[in-house]
Amino acid sequence: MSNFTETDTRMMARALQVARLGRYSAMPNPHVGCVLLRDGQVIAEGFTQAAGGNHAEIQALQAAGDARGATAYVTLEPCSHYGKTGPCAEALIAAGVVRVVAAMEDPNPQVTGQGLARLRAAGIEVSSGLLQDEAEQLIAGFIARMRRGRGRVRAKLAMSLDGRSAMASGESQWITGPAARQDVQRLRASSCAIITGVGTVLADDCSLTVRAAELALPADMAEQACARQPLRVVMDSRLQSPRTAKVLDSTAPSLLCHAESTEVPAALLDCDRLPLPRTDNGLDLQPLMAELNRRQCNEILVESGPRLAGAMLQAGLLDELLVYMAPTLMGSLAQPLLHLPLNEMSEKVPLQIRDLRQIGQDLRFTLIPG
Amino acid sequence: MSNFTETDTRMMARALQVARLGRYSAMPNPHVGCVLLRDGQVIAEGFTQAAGGNHAEIQALQAAGDARGATAYVTLEPCSHYGKTGPCAEALIAAGVVRVVAAMEDPNPQVTGQGLARLRAAGIEVSSGLLQDEAEQLIAGFIARMRRGRGRVRAKLAMSLDGRSAMASGESQWITGPAARQDVQRLRASSCAIITGVGTVLADDCSLTVRAAELALPADMAEQACARQPLRVVMDSRLQSPRTAKVLDSTAPSLLCHAESTEVPAALLDCDRLPLPRTDNGLDLQPLMAELNRRQCNEILVESGPRLAGAMLQAGLLDELLVYMAPTLMGSLAQPLLHLPLNEMSEKVPLQIRDLRQIGQDLRFTLIPG
Repeated sequence: MSNFTETDTRMMARALQVARLGRYSAMPNPHVGCVLLRDGQVIAEGFTQAAGGNHAEIQALQAAGDARGATAYVTLEPCSHYGKTGPCAEALIAAGVVRVVAAMEDPNPQVTGQGLARLRAAGIEVSSGLLQDEAEQLIAGFIARMRRGRGRVRAKLAMSLDGRSAMASGESQWITGPAARQDVQRLRASSCAIITGVGTVLADDCSLTVRAAELALPADMAEQACARQPLRVVMDSRLQSPRTAKVLDSTAPSLLCHAESTEVPAALLDCDRLPLPRTDNGLDLQPLMAELNRRQCNEILVESGPRLAGAMLQAGLLDELLVYMAPTLMGSLAQPLLHLPLNEMSEKVPLQIRDLRQIGQDLRFTLIPG
Repeated sequence: MSNFTETDTRMMARALQVARLGRYSAMPNPHVGCVLLRDGQVIAEGFTQAAGGNHAEIQALQAAGDARGATAYVTLEPCSHYGKTGPCAEALIAAGVVRVVAAMEDPNPQVTGQGLARLRAAGIEVSSGLLQDEAEQLIAGFIARMRRGRGRVRAKLAMSLDGRSAMASGESQWITGPAARQDVQRLRASSCAIITGVGTVLADDCSLTVRAAELALPADMAEQACARQPLRVVMDSRLQSPRTAKVLDSTAPSLLCHAESTEVPAALLDCDRLPLPRTDNGLDLQPLMAELNRRQCNEILVESGPRLAGAMLQAGLLDELLVYMAPTLMGSLAQPLLHLPLNEMSEKVPLQIRDLRQIGQDLRFTLIPG
């Protein structure tokens, strides 16, 4: 463990803040932040641009013009490989940066440490691990995809205080207030894929798109967020979705998942489809996860009814539950939070409350199952 | 509104703290605190003793010995009537106190202001209304009984995060952890009556008593709390409780409520009983409330299954819900928080979150229905 100064910590905290500016547009790249400091002055900052654009370090170096003698604070180890842009490690060396502080090493086991090694070989002072927990939390989806081959899967759920997600009739608008719904829009905007079930499609004809007006973000951020829409995945075993469903329109990409044995109706032949094996508990979700990994999905959001979310929990696929709780009672006839048929107290699912905050009149729980 | 000094506020805050020492033993009297200040020094304090014992002012005056020239801070207007003890207003006058600051006036509409008027008539400087909200919250049950003829009725409920109060089989031990259960013991100790249903009695054979070892209080407070046990009220329409049920034992008083039409089994003839009319939604609760008022119950706690608690909510009888939430999922087959048959979103019951805090690993919501 290196010794970091107070200035180091303050600059890295700033780099983490800068990194967040890319959270709605950098994917499939991780959103990274870079701060250049020289003689106690911040001379430039940068964050990961939309895919195909500059990485954070290049943005900062270009903004600085002359970065000779500077220290670079980066929230992730600079890359050493040639991707869509040149390697950032080489750019930092060429720019005459004398010190690099990274929050964490590259989570990709095949390249981890190579960027830092390249910098050291060029005589640059290098250290890593400053505010690492915060940096890892910031790009948890990317890290999960790199380390285990599956992005972070989160289920967004809305419920009353008595744990109900809809009336028996299916009526559920609105459980939570406008602030919570805006929060969900941002969650959606930070996701690479959104998974829903055909039941939700048939009941609500939801579009599952990111809408600028509902994000309440600065105009340029909102525009970038909407320019890149998450993949809309519909679990539709028997292909009951009408071709006219909003979730299948052309405003964003869609993927229809159905049982291998289901014959594809002519109207749906032009849709992007993924046939999946059936299991006792619905469609097999593992091949879908592999497909989403192939599509480089870092953050996968489940926005579904209680049945699909319950099946994903029981399959051990949910890394996190985001539960918006309204201070109301919807009563004992209403639908459950999750379809989760347990019989004994010994089977109850423990949750770890990672975060709890007020969002407007509602509460938002961030929960880790297990 | 009088102008109060910083010292006044600090002394009244102290009097409110002192008052809390009587919260497990003063009933049916309100638990009141008194602080005597002279020349900037606290010369004595006192709180309401167990029924038949001294009021807070008398305790403080006796402790002071000589209280001439002192200011008395009291959390409730001193009484002016002769009850089990002499009137406190006269005692303050006789002791030579020169100033009295009260947090609130007597909530009994028939005597309100009389104590303060008596003090003023004796030439004492009198003011009222300092930290009044806090003082009212402290003795909310007593105030409710004085003002509307019914004590404060609170339901204590335990649930999982998905709003379930027991497995389908009835199994419910333990939803919450030891800290929450200890908190419930203290809640019970501060209550005058505890209402439960025969279902809970038959399922758990609970005693519903206050047990010193589970209070985790100083020995003298625990002893006083246990010396006075709350009345155990069992809603048992068809008188199914066995005479051997713990809730009917001699360790604490009990009251069996049954339908007027139910024939009383010989074994239960010696029990204290209250026949009630039947309604569409169980026994009529209004005559029970009248009986509990007659018995001077300030704080009434409902510790029941979802059916009785739901019926009381629907009857508009619950002033507050205390919901202990464990960070677990008990699943969609489990029993609801409350039996509350609603069909449409427009019928949902709004709640106001008055307080939310962590108790051990669990959360405790204090909710006002409305």
